[in-house]
Amino acid sequence: MPRVTDDHLAARRRQILDGARRCFAQYGYESATVRRLEETIGLSRGAIFHHFRDKDTLFFELAHEDAERMADVAGREGLIQVMRDMLAAPEQFDWLATRLEIARKLRNDPAFSREWAARSAELSAATTERLRRQEQAGRLRDDVPRDVVRTYLELVLDGLVARLASGDDPEKLGAVLDLVEASVRQP
Amino acid sequence: MPRVTDDHLAARRRQILDGARRCFAQYGYESATVRRLEETIGLSRGAIFHHFRDKDTLFFELAHEDAERMADVAGREGLIQVMRDMLAAPEQFDWLATRLEIARKLRNDPAFSREWAARSAELSAATTERLRRQEQAGRLRDDVPRDVVRTYLELVLDGLVARLASGDDPEKLGAVLDLVEASVRQP
Repeated sequence: MPRVTDDHLAARRRQILDGARRCFAQYGYESATVRRLEETIGLSRGAIFHHFRDKDTLFFELAHEDAERMADVAGREGLIQVMRDMLAAPEQFDWLATRLEIARKLRNDPAFSREWAARSAELSAATTERLRRQEQAGRLRDDVPRDVVRTYLELVLDGLVARLASGDDPEKLGAVLDLVEASVRQP
Repeated sequence: MPRVTDDHLAARRRQILDGARRCFAQYGYESATVRRLEETIGLSRGAIFHHFRDKDTLFFELAHEDAERMADVAGREGLIQVMRDMLAAPEQFDWLATRLEIARKLRNDPAFSREWAARSAELSAATTERLRRQEQAGRLRDDVPRDVVRTYLELVLDGLVARLASGDDPEKLGAVLDLVEASVRQP
């Protein structure tokens, strides 16, 4: 019998990812050092990096989990519903702030940027597909190219994350999302 | 005769602010250490902090310069023109990224947040006043409260900064701004 079963392996990976998410949320991307990851996860760096190659691999895996969950909602109900879900979950704001903290790295580190794009591809594809269906159903405004609408919604998502992470009132931001929603609909 | 004239004082302050802006742009808010500020500015920490109390004071002074410049454009031509100016000045993207890097601090550090709000007040006031005039002239949509429109435009500005700092194509973002502009106009 193997000493480590698949269940144990999955549980250990889960423990590492959950701890890493808390650590990034608390300290931010840059300040989530290996030492702090050890403390928050409750495992040695040897044990952590046996499962995930390095800090960035951990970060990308968490981003991938987000993207999967968001793609599921975006595909069924659209990217604006993804944003409404964000407003309803204030406990996530600190984690969301890490999305902003990597902007400089995305711009200056091509390898990091490619990896991030790969992990976010699922969400982009789901959004594109949803917009295509909305357009076919005559619910999307047709005077603006679909990829401009998609870029607009992605920009609004980043703006929403920035305002939430800065401490803006979620209720006021909800009213803004109503305006955004109206602005992409067929009048 | 005084040893340090007003002209000398102004030139020294300018040297410090310009160097600090380059330093923040290159390293980001957190990693712009006092040592790096010394190197980029070309003065000792003693000389620098004789003119500005600490790193945050320097940062707020730069933010205040931005806000003044942006308020001037926003008051005359609106916040969307401020954003178009951003797209036209790629050399500023790295500095703009620092706006995102302080989001976590804005949320978790009330004193920092108050100081930031005070330095940005001029821009908010100019935007509010411009929207009021646009509404009176019948150019602003009137089915959405004016402060929701303002929050919307501020959110779009943050989103634009995030997309620029992440390396998005400015031309594509220009088309997005056209959509944003149409969405706040009276149809």
